[in-house]
Amino acid sequence: MKPPCVALVSGVIDMRFLMPAFETIAPGIDVRITDVLGERDKIELAVCWAPPQGLLASMPNLRLIQSIGAGVDHILKDSTLPPKPVCRIVDPDMTAGMTAYVCWAVINRQRRFPAYCAHSAAGVWQEEAIESPSGHCVGIAGLGRLGTAVARALVAIGYRVQGWSRQPKTDPLPGVTHFHGKAGLEDFLARTDTLVCLLPLTEETTGFLGRETFRQLPPGAHVINVGRGAHLVERDLLDALASGHLSGATLDTTAVEPLPQTHPFWRHQQILVTPHIASRTSPATIARQTLDNYRHVCAGRIPSGQIDPRHGY
Amino acid sequence: MKPPCVALVSGVIDMRFLMPAFETIAPGIDVRITDVLGERDKIELAVCWAPPQGLLASMPNLRLIQSIGAGVDHILKDSTLPPKPVCRIVDPDMTAGMTAYVCWAVINRQRRFPAYCAHSAAGVWQEEAIESPSGHCVGIAGLGRLGTAVARALVAIGYRVQGWSRQPKTDPLPGVTHFHGKAGLEDFLARTDTLVCLLPLTEETTGFLGRETFRQLPPGAHVINVGRGAHLVERDLLDALASGHLSGATLDTTAVEPLPQTHPFWRHQQILVTPHIASRTSPATIARQTLDNYRHVCAGRIPSGQIDPRHGY
Ligand SMILES: NC(=O)c1ccc[n+]([C@@H]2O[C@H](COP(=O)([O-])OP(=O)(O)OC[C@H]3O[C@@H](n4cnc5c(N)ncnc54)[C@H](OP(=O)(O)O)[C@@H]3O)[C@@H](O)[C@H]2O)c1
Ligand SMILES: NC(=O)c1ccc[n+]([C@@H]2O[C@H](COP(=O)([O-])OP(=O)(O)OC[C@H]3O[C@@H](n4cnc5c(N)ncnc54)[C@H](OP(=O)(O)O)[C@@H]3O)[C@@H](O)[C@H]2O)c1
Repeated sequence: MKPPCVALVSGVIDMRFLMPAFETIAPGIDVRITDVLGERDKIELAVCWAPPQGLLASMPNLRLIQSIGAGVDHILKDSTLPPKPVCRIVDPDMTAGMTAYVCWAVINRQRRFPAYCAHSAAGVWQEEAIESPSGHCVGIAGLGRLGTAVARALVAIGYRVQGWSRQPKTDPLPGVTHFHGKAGLEDFLARTDTLVCLLPLTEETTGFLGRETFRQLPPGAHVINVGRGAHLVERDLLDALASGHLSGATLDTTAVEPLPQTHPFWRHQQILVTPHIASRTSPATIARQTLDNYRHVCAGRIPSGQIDPRHGY
Repeated sequence: MKPPCVALVSGVIDMRFLMPAFETIAPGIDVRITDVLGERDKIELAVCWAPPQGLLASMPNLRLIQSIGAGVDHILKDSTLPPKPVCRIVDPDMTAGMTAYVCWAVINRQRRFPAYCAHSAAGVWQEEAIESPSGHCVGIAGLGRLGTAVARALVAIGYRVQGWSRQPKTDPLPGVTHFHGKAGLEDFLARTDTLVCLLPLTEETTGFLGRETFRQLPPGAHVINVGRGAHLVERDLLDALASGHLSGATLDTTAVEPLPQTHPFWRHQQILVTPHIASRTSPATIARQTLDNYRHVCAGRIPSGQIDPRHGY
């Protein structure tokens, strides 16, 4: 089968880094970039990160819209999106990267490593309170591909773990207490010492990390956002930290990225900001999965990572 | 059964913190402290952390020698030790604490968190190289109670994991490549990007983290010592870091504790020192396990955590 004509489209990042991977896997492939798309009717496959509004609708022969990440919020926000299959990346390496990030962030604060790091740099031998993971409950909002892997790892370490999803789970995770839906949220939050947001960004989940959620967490809770910046209400976080109700936040995503120089999250004693690096898929994996998905769609098979636009994820 | 007369003995730490736990579990119990032991022939149970040389031999009616930690090196170094059962603590909370510590230390360096922490404090949005855990191999020297739990957790996160022990394993750990004995050491080290020392301190393992071991690790390896200070040859570590062969070290134990103010490990860019806090057992658990063990010994049963003095662990 001849490789499809591929458009790499983004309104916010330079997509050229993906070209070599496509050319390696499918030599001679026709790969085009956002600003130089040429004849739109040639394009059969769009590979996207936040495509400019309306651009995908200008491609009449598109057969597949592929996100280069695990989320598709940046695609679905295009109100003129053509009714084609939309897929996200599903990648064990991305899962491992995310799992490592979240485990580090949970342990870092629960075991007071920022203090130990400062002590080591200052030459101070000083014991902080040592609390066992078995007395600390991590609540994972979003128990999908990533949340499930994170939950399993935290159980293996020895934390108490609970998860929250939209629907009930038919296949419960060993050692993980499960809650679902709006009705399950209050109980979930009430017992959560560290809250991890691994939700997809949808209408329902926007602003999830806000005043109402924080209020229902026990005092001293730590919040980790590895979802999207728009999950967080920034003002509410600053207030909850200032009042002492929350003890800290670890944020891998922010509403505006890069986070502006003057933003109050920078240099905040209780906030750690990382530049959206919790996990990443290699260009080779993106190219391979994208072309495999294209073949599946052409053959009438369901591609990997296809999302349901009604739910937004 | 009347509770035994207990001696809490240490030449280096103040053991009084354990008294309330014994008194709570066995009200009226006769508990004595290192310096005020009274009539030695009354003492039936010695609870120890580095007991002064010769002190245990002065207790003619001793039935059990209990360590308050997972290791017994600090007891076996007493050359006049009476031939009584020696037990160490086996505690799921201690295991979870150790597992969390090691997972944090592995991820911290592999995912370059020290740089991200510094960037966050300075207001810098800057991506470091993002390598997946699946390309990084953690080698655990000592695959006993603690090493096994650590290995399982690192597998769950997504690392490549291998372990090294003294004897072959009859019951292999899923996802963990296993090596054993002197003959297996070279292959084990050659593929280890992060080396974790979770060995007991014995004649054979003293100085394990030295020039010969470092030389066999791939360039850029990270060394984590959560065993004992005497596993490490300090000068060899400083040399291997200075030459660039090792990239860093995370040390929870040191030859002299507290680490002296003027020691070169303090403030070293590539060394993180923590004050022997990787894991800890609660006084309640120590008291409960100790008294249970005493009852087992009196009833002719094998106590939990009994060690084999021929092997030193
Ligand atoms: N920071 C980073 O570097 C990075 C990297 C990758 C991904 N991410 C983020 O992580 C998100 C999750 O990825 P994933 O692969 O795990 O997604 P996924 O497999 O689609 O899982 C999503 C989970 O969220 C739950 N959920 C969705 N809407 C909900 C609602 N309204 N209330 C409660 N639960 C709800 C789902 O519930 P059901 O199980 O009931 O469907 C599911 O458990 C992505 O969407 C992306 O935003 C961030
Ligand atoms: N930093 C802290 O806070 C802290 C806290 C707790 C414990 N520790 C340290 O951790 C150590 C391990 O604890 P554990 O409960 O896991 O002990 P364990 O269950 O006795 O396991 C010891 C492991 O080391 C292996 N081993 C012993 N001698 C060896 C040799 N010469 N060559 C290769 N492998 C050897 C054993 O091999 P086999 O399986 O073949 O017997 C076993 O796998 C303790 O002794 C203590 O020093 C430190």
